[in-house]
Amino acid sequence: MGTYDPHIFKPLTFHDAIPAFQAGADTPRAYLERCLEVVAAREPVVQAFAARNDAAARAAADASAARWKAGRPLSAIDGMPVGIKDLLETKDMPTQMGCAAYADNFPRRDNAAVLALRQAGAVIFGKTVTAELGGAHPGPTTNPFDPARTPGGSSSGSGAAVGAGMLPAAIGTQVGGSIIRPAAYCANFALKPTQGGINRGERQATSMSTHGPHAGSIEDMWQVAIEIVCRVGGDRGCPGLSGPPTPPRARRPERLIVLETEGWAALDASSREALARLLAQLEAQGVALLRRTDDPLIEALEQAVSDARSVCGAITGWENRWSQRGLVDLYPEDVSPRAQATLAKAEAMTPAEYRAALLRRDIAQRVHAAIAPMADGIITLACPGPAPLWSGDPPGQPLVPRPTGDFVFNAPSSLLFAPAVTLPLLAVGGMPVGVQVMRQPHADASCVAIGRWMMAAVTPVMVW
Amino acid sequence: MGTYDPHIFKPLTFHDAIPAFQAGADTPRAYLERCLEVVAAREPVVQAFAARNDAAARAAADASAARWKAGRPLSAIDGMPVGIKDLLETKDMPTQMGCAAYADNFPRRDNAAVLALRQAGAVIFGKTVTAELGGAHPGPTTNPFDPARTPGGSSSGSGAAVGAGMLPAAIGTQVGGSIIRPAAYCANFALKPTQGGINRGERQATSMSTHGPHAGSIEDMWQVAIEIVCRVGGDRGCPGLSGPPTPPRARRPERLIVLETEGWAALDASSREALARLLAQLEAQGVALLRRTDDPLIEALEQAVSDARSVCGAITGWENRWSQRGLVDLYPEDVSPRAQATLAKAEAMTPAEYRAALLRRDIAQRVHAAIAPMADGIITLACPGPAPLWSGDPPGQPLVPRPTGDFVFNAPSSLLFAPAVTLPLLAVGGMPVGVQVMRQPHADASCVAIGRWMMAAVTPVMVW
Repeated sequence: MGTYDPHIFKPLTFHDAIPAFQAGADTPRAYLERCLEVVAAREPVVQAFAARNDAAARAAADASAARWKAGRPLSAIDGMPVGIKDLLETKDMPTQMGCAAYADNFPRRDNAAVLALRQAGAVIFGKTVTAELGGAHPGPTTNPFDPARTPGGSSSGSGAAVGAGMLPAAIGTQVGGSIIRPAAYCANFALKPTQGGINRGERQATSMSTHGPHAGSIEDMWQVAIEIVCRVGGDRGCPGLSGPPTPPRARRPERLIVLETEGWAALDASSREALARLLAQLEAQGVALLRRTDDPLIEALEQAVSDARSVCGAITGWENRWSQRGLVDLYPEDVSPRAQATLAKAEAMTPAEYRAALLRRDIAQRVHAAIAPMADGIITLACPGPAPLWSGDPPGQPLVPRPTGDFVFNAPSSLLFAPAVTLPLLAVGGMPVGVQVMRQPHADASCVAIGRWMMAAVTPVMVW
Repeated sequence: MGTYDPHIFKPLTFHDAIPAFQAGADTPRAYLERCLEVVAAREPVVQAFAARNDAAARAAADASAARWKAGRPLSAIDGMPVGIKDLLETKDMPTQMGCAAYADNFPRRDNAAVLALRQAGAVIFGKTVTAELGGAHPGPTTNPFDPARTPGGSSSGSGAAVGAGMLPAAIGTQVGGSIIRPAAYCANFALKPTQGGINRGERQATSMSTHGPHAGSIEDMWQVAIEIVCRVGGDRGCPGLSGPPTPPRARRPERLIVLETEGWAALDASSREALARLLAQLEAQGVALLRRTDDPLIEALEQAVSDARSVCGAITGWENRWSQRGLVDLYPEDVSPRAQATLAKAEAMTPAEYRAALLRRDIAQRVHAAIAPMADGIITLACPGPAPLWSGDPPGQPLVPRPTGDFVFNAPSSLLFAPAVTLPLLAVGGMPVGVQVMRQPHADASCVAIGRWMMAAVTPVMVW
């Protein structure tokens, strides 16, 4: 049984600390020290960090404090402590990717998004634990609301650090479900932007991965994303996230499509009940809800994403195949059996099978585009119920499938290149369960606007 | 004055050696030794190679010889010695990218295309010199037809090794003009495939780069490309090169558009004359030629690519910005002033300027798609006349612009994501000048089919 109660849980936020910085009543250095106190208390159990550089963080916070004092902050996130998923390179900390083959890897350069955060004055606080190579093999991180459970993955440390109140924000990455799911399990807000929305820098080997912010508030979530993009743009070939320089204003949707996804059939009764009670609140506020039985186009979309998980898996497996083969050849002992099994599956694929998977993706995107005029967005769960228990693979038995949880509710937005936001609006058995809002590609800002409206308009639902 | 006479020049070919392998009259090992003899004679002046591993090449050739002897070759390129541009990683040779910052860099893994070549039985012969980081700063390679001239770049060594008859084929890469131009200056055949046509493996940081084969014959050129793609496919998110498993049959085009490009105005009179005489031969063979004055859509295409060079430069500069900044920060002394000047230009760009360049590219692609029904393809020069003289930057003076030649005839196909083939059909002042055939994206095979027809149907043109 978890300890999460959305009515009393107070996440760490940054945007509301700014008036005190401006008034001289608080400083980014003091803010950082408060984070470090929470880290000291929680990190021994949560284990969110793969590396920290407290001296560098303190120096950055002091520099920020001087800027606020002089009335010349670099941005609205100047002084914000931010965690960086350990897949992204940072010049002052190693980048070990949760993989023994990268132990002590220290390239001494910043990923484009990290560079942008520094230019905005953010305090690069530490490297957050990633499941191995951004895949399924878990790191040591535990769920901040129940240490017997996974925090989700692969952005495990980013989700847990924000959920534990250690940090107001952290950067995650998603290929299948690696931002939205851990955020949902850890009561974060998070944005998986439109494909290509945030410059991935050197991390562009797959066609379906994104950077995205986890945060304790939807305002900080947006601010982190837009501060990065206004400095380094989106991915090569992409226009990048578009939207206002401050959090988009709340906006009530007229109509939302309730997407079941492949995850619906196996969903536990309590999570279904929690979502149903939330949806009832939306209807009471005048939001029309449309379901698969209401329109053949919605049914077509359900069918188009009915194998999203396996299509995502095939595409990503193929695209990671060459780099992971090189790694395994060099360090056969230092890549997990779980990752090697994924590699073996990818190596059994042919180019024609990859092309067929791309065609499935393209068709799903066409169907999604076709429903655009019908509604203001899609609503569904962000994870299939509360975070599962996890205590390691039992010796001598087959590997546990998906130890960081199932990405069945996340694969659709990844496949559709669509923006998705998770909102911490449900508690099931004392554990957080996220509600997900998706929109058409490039409508990230209005996705966030709907999220802001929902946070103000509905009451979190608790089901035991 | 160069030494190139297309009527007597005999490039090295591989496809026609196969009958002798099958008959036991020749072996891949003997073929390799003949290559090594040419290398011994020409390499001291041409300097095409950044690294070689003759022992590994001989072992691979012996293994191939055993397969041919047993009647079980792995592919039609089993035993073919292939050069690999030194931007691509190879497990048995360093990857130094023509940049002092990467001196002795030896990642001990194969790029996806290199892995595919090995799986097809090809002999990975050596690393061919690249201009620094694939940019404009030249390596030591000289033009095989006049050592006072550039071989072109950035695939300098690939072009020169094939042009000098050292190798039947080599892999190049192009972002603006780095395959087609050196191939054109060195009397190679080469294919710059449709964007995404050949799996770049880890080299996917820019939206407009491709791998492509240089070869002494159009048959070997196609075979190398298709053997790679049938093993490792195209880039992430792309279907990859499509076409037959053997060289596409010759096909006479009905109509070709003669594209002037931005390069026309500054073109020397001899190169204009050479192209005009070639075009006259095509007309005599019944090919209708269409020009900008014949149709407003062709004029629109000319205008859409009239700043292709600067749009390509802006997009690529922006996309390389973060990785090159990281490199320069780490190794400020080991990146050339020429590359640092390019970086400074990119760092002056805003995200909005990058988006505007992407929009220019998208519009050019739309215009190109609109002319599809009008003709079977486009014909133009592959380079702005013969390779320029190059003897280094004069001390104390501004850097020479574009020392490996001007990509003004290459930027259009890069910008349009269109396949382009260069054919060694012209000689101007004793130096090779290529003729370029372009088609719509994904029509690589029919582009090659037109090229095969032209090689059989017309006589090379010499102008002094």
